[in-house]
Amino acid sequence: MGRTRNSTQKGHSRVSNLRPSCCEVVESASSPQASCEGLYFGDGRRKIDYVLVFNHRRHSSIRSASASVSRAELSVVSNGNFPPTARSDAATGRGQPASVGEVFMELGNARGGEPMEVADQEMQLIRQEFEANLLDAGLEIERDREVKAHGLSFTRIHAPWPVLCREAEFLKVKVPTKTVIKETGFGSRLSSVWRKLNQPFQPKVFHQDHGSTKFLSHYTHTHTHTHTHTHTHTHTHTHTHTHTHTHILTTMVFSLSLSLSLSLSLSLSLSLSLSPSLPPSLPPSQVLHEEWARYSAFFKYQPIDLVRKYFGEKVGLYFAWLGVYTQLLIPASIVGIIVFGYGVATVDTNVPSLEMCDDRLNFTMCPLCDGACDYWHLSNACGTARASHLFDNPATVFFAIFMSLWAVLFLEHWKRRQISLSFSWDLTGIEDDEVNTQNTSGVEVGVANRSKIFVVTIEKLTWKDRLPGYLVNISSILFMFGLTCSAVFSVIIYRITISALMAMNPDPEIKSNVRVTVTATAVIINLVVILILDEIYGYVALRLTELEIPKTETDYEERLILKAFLLKFMNAYAPIFYVAFFKGRFAGRPGSYTYVFNNYRMEECAPGGCLIELCIQLSIIMLGKQLIQNNIFEIGIPKLKKLFRSLRDKKSTPKERDEEKPHQWNLDYALAPFEGLTPEYMEMIIQFGFVSLFVASFPLAPLFALLNNVIEIRLDAKKFVTELRRPVAVRAKDIGIWYNILSGMGKLSVIINAFVISFTSDFVPRLVYQYMFSPTGTMDGFINHTLSYFNVSEFKPGKAPLNSQAGDITFCRYKDYREPPWSSDSYQFSKQYWCVLSARLAFVILFQNLVMFLSLMVAWVIPDVPKTIVEQLKREKKLLVNLFLQEEKEKFQLIQSFFVKDEPGPSTSLPVSFVSWCVWHSGVVNKWSPWDELLPTEWMCVVPTHTTVHLIKC
Amino acid sequence: MGRTRNSTQKGHSRVSNLRPSCCEVVESASSPQASCEGLYFGDGRRKIDYVLVFNHRRHSSIRSASASVSRAELSVVSNGNFPPTARSDAATGRGQPASVGEVFMELGNARGGEPMEVADQEMQLIRQEFEANLLDAGLEIERDREVKAHGLSFTRIHAPWPVLCREAEFLKVKVPTKTVIKETGFGSRLSSVWRKLNQPFQPKVFHQDHGSTKFLSHYTHTHTHTHTHTHTHTHTHTHTHTHTHTHILTTMVFSLSLSLSLSLSLSLSLSLSLSPSLPPSLPPSQVLHEEWARYSAFFKYQPIDLVRKYFGEKVGLYFAWLGVYTQLLIPASIVGIIVFGYGVATVDTNVPSLEMCDDRLNFTMCPLCDGACDYWHLSNACGTARASHLFDNPATVFFAIFMSLWAVLFLEHWKRRQISLSFSWDLTGIEDDEVNTQNTSGVEVGVANRSKIFVVTIEKLTWKDRLPGYLVNISSILFMFGLTCSAVFSVIIYRITISALMAMNPDPEIKSNVRVTVTATAVIINLVVILILDEIYGYVALRLTELEIPKTETDYEERLILKAFLLKFMNAYAPIFYVAFFKGRFAGRPGSYTYVFNNYRMEECAPGGCLIELCIQLSIIMLGKQLIQNNIFEIGIPKLKKLFRSLRDKKSTPKERDEEKPHQWNLDYALAPFEGLTPEYMEMIIQFGFVSLFVASFPLAPLFALLNNVIEIRLDAKKFVTELRRPVAVRAKDIGIWYNILSGMGKLSVIINAFVISFTSDFVPRLVYQYMFSPTGTMDGFINHTLSYFNVSEFKPGKAPLNSQAGDITFCRYKDYREPPWSSDSYQFSKQYWCVLSARLAFVILFQNLVMFLSLMVAWVIPDVPKTIVEQLKREKKLLVNLFLQEEKEKFQLIQSFFVKDEPGPSTSLPVSFVSWCVWHSGVVNKWSPWDELLPTEWMCVVPTHTTVHLIKC
Repeated sequence: MGRTRNSTQKGHSRVSNLRPSCCEVVESASSPQASCEGLYFGDGRRKIDYVLVFNHRRHSSIRSASASVSRAELSVVSNGNFPPTARSDAATGRGQPASVGEVFMELGNARGGEPMEVADQEMQLIRQEFEANLLDAGLEIERDREVKAHGLSFTRIHAPWPVLCREAEFLKVKVPTKTVIKETGFGSRLSSVWRKLNQPFQPKVFHQDHGSTKFLSHYTHTHTHTHTHTHTHTHTHTHTHTHTHTHILTTMVFSLSLSLSLSLSLSLSLSLSLSPSLPPSLPPSQVLHEEWARYSAFFKYQPIDLVRKYFGEKVGLYFAWLGVYTQLLIPASIVGIIVFGYGVATVDTNVPSLEMCDDRLNFTMCPLCDGACDYWHLSNACGTARASHLFDNPATVFFAIFMSLWAVLFLEHWKRRQISLSFSWDLTGIEDDEVNTQNTSGVEVGVANRSKIFVVTIEKLTWKDRLPGYLVNISSILFMFGLTCSAVFSVIIYRITISALMAMNPDPEIKSNVRVTVTATAVIINLVVILILDEIYGYVALRLTELEIPKTETDYEERLILKAFLLKFMNAYAPIFYVAFFKGRFAGRPGSYTYVFNNYRMEECAPGGCLIELCIQLSIIMLGKQLIQNNIFEIGIPKLKKLFRSLRDKKSTPKERDEEKPHQWNLDYALAPFEGLTPEYMEMIIQFGFVSLFVASFPLAPLFALLNNVIEIRLDAKKFVTELRRPVAVRAKDIGIWYNILSGMGKLSVIINAFVISFTSDFVPRLVYQYMFSPTGTMDGFINHTLSYFNVSEFKPGKAPLNSQAGDITFCRYKDYREPPWSSDSYQFSKQYWCVLSARLAFVILFQNLVMFLSLMVAWVIPDVPKTIVEQLKREKKLLVNLFLQEEKEKFQLIQSFFVKDEPGPSTSLPVSFVSWCVWHSGVVNKWSPWDELLPTEWMCVVPTHTTVHLIKC
Repeated sequence: MGRTRNSTQKGHSRVSNLRPSCCEVVESASSPQASCEGLYFGDGRRKIDYVLVFNHRRHSSIRSASASVSRAELSVVSNGNFPPTARSDAATGRGQPASVGEVFMELGNARGGEPMEVADQEMQLIRQEFEANLLDAGLEIERDREVKAHGLSFTRIHAPWPVLCREAEFLKVKVPTKTVIKETGFGSRLSSVWRKLNQPFQPKVFHQDHGSTKFLSHYTHTHTHTHTHTHTHTHTHTHTHTHTHTHILTTMVFSLSLSLSLSLSLSLSLSLSLSPSLPPSLPPSQVLHEEWARYSAFFKYQPIDLVRKYFGEKVGLYFAWLGVYTQLLIPASIVGIIVFGYGVATVDTNVPSLEMCDDRLNFTMCPLCDGACDYWHLSNACGTARASHLFDNPATVFFAIFMSLWAVLFLEHWKRRQISLSFSWDLTGIEDDEVNTQNTSGVEVGVANRSKIFVVTIEKLTWKDRLPGYLVNISSILFMFGLTCSAVFSVIIYRITISALMAMNPDPEIKSNVRVTVTATAVIINLVVILILDEIYGYVALRLTELEIPKTETDYEERLILKAFLLKFMNAYAPIFYVAFFKGRFAGRPGSYTYVFNNYRMEECAPGGCLIELCIQLSIIMLGKQLIQNNIFEIGIPKLKKLFRSLRDKKSTPKERDEEKPHQWNLDYALAPFEGLTPEYMEMIIQFGFVSLFVASFPLAPLFALLNNVIEIRLDAKKFVTELRRPVAVRAKDIGIWYNILSGMGKLSVIINAFVISFTSDFVPRLVYQYMFSPTGTMDGFINHTLSYFNVSEFKPGKAPLNSQAGDITFCRYKDYREPPWSSDSYQFSKQYWCVLSARLAFVILFQNLVMFLSLMVAWVIPDVPKTIVEQLKREKKLLVNLFLQEEKEKFQLIQSFFVKDEPGPSTSLPVSFVSWCVWHSGVVNKWSPWDELLPTEWMCVVPTHTTVHLIKC
């Protein structure tokens, strides 16, 4: 087999010598050969496009190694009983998937004899077959000269131009068209002024390399490819490289896996890591490093096109999305600050808080705890009342509406940006280039991870096979829900008990600090629990998704994201939901409080209202989560991991390291592997929730989000450029399920804000008082109106204050709308209660429908496709049609003259002018030539039947 | 000019003689030449594809004729002042657009002399130029032999195959691929059983003509084109015909218009009617007539593919949509009947209606009118109470939820069907084939109608130019809103006054019939008003849209539809909205009723509740509208019009008629012109509103809609096949803005149904009573609870019953939740009122959010693209890839052998095998061959660079 392989390869290289000059240009254009010797094959000509890493493990360390380096494995599970095994694993709580090493061990044991040797042999076989497949696909391969028994060994891959072209054809990579469109008149003058104003914010990308027009064309979205033909070729080549590599390798992996699974007897651990070479001297990475991955560039636009070119569309879209989000946070922050400023400005003229601070009104409130607490004066709560007004004022209602519309606007804006990008990145025509889920032989392929593929040779997974997986899933998710709720509940219990205990403490020093201490510790506990559960849930979501054996990679990703999102969302927001909608609502009333565990009274909100507590909770969780996750998880832990990895590598392979200057691929492999964009997106989406869901209670949330994101962009950029292996470029035309999640959150935010304003804040009761109950039509007397009376003689024994210093008191007041003790149905909800409730509910309906209607209007008014692009497309189409019509006329005349002069016999040669319609088709018009019909049969296929976009002198 | 034209045409016919045999097949395949002589050119070979009609009007009748036959005119307005003229027209109330005749007259007068002669000359010139343009585009033309001075003259057009091919290329018409996929196993067996069961419902289309497999392929959505090559060609040809004709003619019209408008001095009336020939002996029209356009076929599926082939995609989509809608009405009707049945079954056990009918409970109600009316016993309203229960029971709530989900389901189902259709009709890749809105010279084209084009030579319409149009628009629409409301209000006044007058009438006979008489006459008046305003609004919407000068035809259509929909929707639903949400809410209470015009008490709902009135109103308007519109507007008026037209034609052209047997095109022209699908859609959408918006009050609405639609389909089909000129085929990939309107109505229906259930029906009060106020926990005493007390001594003078026969009465009862007279705040809303109101509002919130959530889930669970199609696409892609790979290998070997053997000089002839890669590209894969690179420069373009789908022996 090796023989035939070699001969094919010879044929290849023979052919590639015949390549026209454009391909030569490409190879020499990127960097001078001499300086970059390491990135070429031994012959110094063929560029290294990919590097495969085979990790031969030591026999003794198979188990431990497979656990720690399991990122980059090709797992082949062919014993057919994968799902039950995994299920039982999960059931027993170990949750470890049937890892490769295990399967190998099992098979080895079943066969008896010397399992390790067998495995080695099989590994060799598999590797040979894999490489043979690669050669078969037209790739060229170079191995390390010396053969190592263990440790890493690298195989370099070069993809020749024809192979790239073939794959590009499969992937429908578009060739840039050459249409020069000039903007004239006022519009262009305006835009040039705008460009000048914008200059300082633009990253300096243009002047870094020679193909400036290329990039310019993308930035202006007008496809002004004024570069020469050679440039076009270069451009295309670079394009093609990134995408086709991935595709061809993925396909290889799959065809290998399938052939393996069909033979039904092979299994072994083949650790395959796709680490594309990252040449440090190439301009893109340097430019990115200079102009993008630096904190000092925080005020600049991102060089998105360069990012996309270097990392692929998927990463490019992430950063573009992050950029749009951050940009749109600016207006939201400004409005938020203004709303907050309004609160600050009006705090001294606000009647309710003035009334609360007024000592003369002298409301004697019922005690806050049983026995130990005394009656207290409402004016003591003056501070929280004033603070509460900062967030609970009419401007907040406006802000909530504004932010709901902002969310819609953001999504619409992103849609437009996405379409702009897919237009300038030529993604409009791409389809899902997924591996077929089910081939004709009925073998199903389960995808677990980008670099981890399970091939299951069960004929077809039926409903019955999948059911247990789904059941485990549902029950696990329900369990996690329960876990989160109980975590929240425990914190509540902690708060209740601690405050009760501290209140019983005779020391007045401790007593006065009760609320501060309890709140502070409780929120910190909450935060810690959230952070811990977050990590656990991420892991659980991963395992649960693998249990489902999704068919395609997109499917896998979507399921994982959905699960992880559900769990993390709930985790992050459960305590906030509790404070917003449940806290203080089940406390009961004086004389019949609700007790948990028979002893502890349910907690009430602070005297200033629940909104201020919600605000505190929200801000601490949001800020704490961002600070800790950014600093510890995104900076600290990777640094530690890197340190650990380098230490371990040094220990395990000391002799191989100190030979000489290490190859670039050795250095690249030492970087941390790329783990997908899900964590990055997830962090941002959860933040989006803080910004949109409860924004009615905390108008400064957008500002904090903005500050975080400005740093986050550069942090992520740094990580991508310097700390991670260069990710395999993945094509994507949108951000996928994240968009749906964002849109769902936008919808949810409307209803949640409606409820926060109407039920958590005092906005509606104030309105109702002013327009229905106030005798003067002003807010005077509002506080009195919201407080009900309680006859202290009705305290149950032991519940009244034990040593009251308040003197002789008949009635104490509490915040609720209930009938007074002297009424016939005392302590029942009063008419005011029902009236206010109606108003609250009516407000919810009004708010929700108004905002939904406005959102629909906004979404309807803003066209999905930007006008410039529509016009551009039309212009292009028109140019094309004109060109086509003109050419057709010429052709027609030619054919006419051709037929009139001399009717050629079937074997005569064609006139040169006829042949010279050398066309390069851009994929814009389907070709189906009318001229086929006009020619004698034999000639039909010689005439190029394309629409010419631009004539290329070949 | 005529010379060169002729020579070109010669060249054309010369070339067309060289056409290969496949084209011959096409021409002779459709029908034997002998029988269909009239549908071919004089030479008996070239088929007539289109007929142009030029209407030379008599000078005296220009004005009247342009008004009556203005449908099919090409209007060229080049004096540049169209918008102001039209605006002033609208302002003065005439609303007549600047019609062609008028413009001509104006210009003629301005020039003085003999305007008619000048016009005639110019008309000749224009006609010549137009025909020259057609010839230029490659069409072939045949005129009438005799030249008539006046009246109709027909110009036949033949589109040769190459022209069709060229246009097909522009339109991206796809060539069918030849992929044979066999279904195997259980699925196919199941589907064959299903097919057998379905057999009686399938229209007998297959066995009517020879190309059976073609149609089969579409029905099964599997593209099983097993027919031979000749068939493929035929198929393609027919495809192409329908679409490309339209396109080429539209383009012509536009280029003509533009050239005219640029010359800036021409204007005349050129009546151009595109009436494609409708050959009666062709299979499609006969099949359609037999299997589709007959009432007796009502139970069958529609032959949608045939409809689409004959009438174009747009009409095909309408009927497909109508079919899906009607089909989905079946389950809705069944559930509706069950819900109604539940009402019927429980009417005798329903406590509230039993209590109302119970004579023993003896509630004395306050009089229904001032003075004349007496106190009455609630048991008198027993009948309406029982009837009310039929529609107002707990099952209705379920039904409202069901129907909201049904609406979502319907939309999702339609989305899938649309995608299926666009897959089987090969529409997936098409773009908007609209004429460019704005060409480089800055001339704007205003489109007014498919066959009416305004060219305005103003350089560019600025905001200032458009503003007056928009202002007129907005104010007109507001005026129409006011008109509708006042119409509704007038009917209310009518009802109030008539009932007051009749109540005052001493005759007891009349008195007892008050309610029935008033309600019946009022609803009929309502209906008549609705029908009249409907026609007026349709006309107004048309005129208003023309005022806006929309840029493209789609734009025009969307604006028109939106306006017409808004006006007609409001018109149809305003009285229903009034009954549902306003009637009885402003009536006041005994002792302080609300009066209009100082004298007339505002009307209250019937004692049984407002829901039964809503139900009556809804059913009468819905049924009446459907019956009258179907019978009179859709059958009667067209018949009358036809009669009138034929009479006029006979009168005007008596001598030309009785020459001989008239040509087919004469007969076709005599049919009514096609006026677009908007009225058809509009009728259905308004019906959809009846079915979805207020379905909570009338569960039988879907049933009536179903019955109507079964007839409607066949009625429309009959109209399209026999009574209208065959419409110009229009490509469309979806139903456009109608989908958005449907989706908007679905959303609206949720909130409206929520309000109907909670506010119009007694569902919520009953629940509240049962769970909050009932002493026993049952419904006993509910009626008593809903009635408040009124002290009759508090009647204002003259308002109490004048001659009461009720004996000594202290208190009368009325339906409201108010404090009793003996309470401290008597006649104020009671606590129960606020409690019930809260419950009602809470129900709205709950219902709305629950249904919205469920809708989202339904839309999320149902994939937009049917699974079969996804799989089919994948399979096709795979086949293609396999084929491509295989061929590539062959090619590669060939090239290798080729280069190895002898390096050919640039001018040597290619080997035959090389040339024989005759490929017919199916448009599925972009061609960008890797082999370009491998060949010496001179050869590059000779190699066909396509992916071969199937090799066609040319």
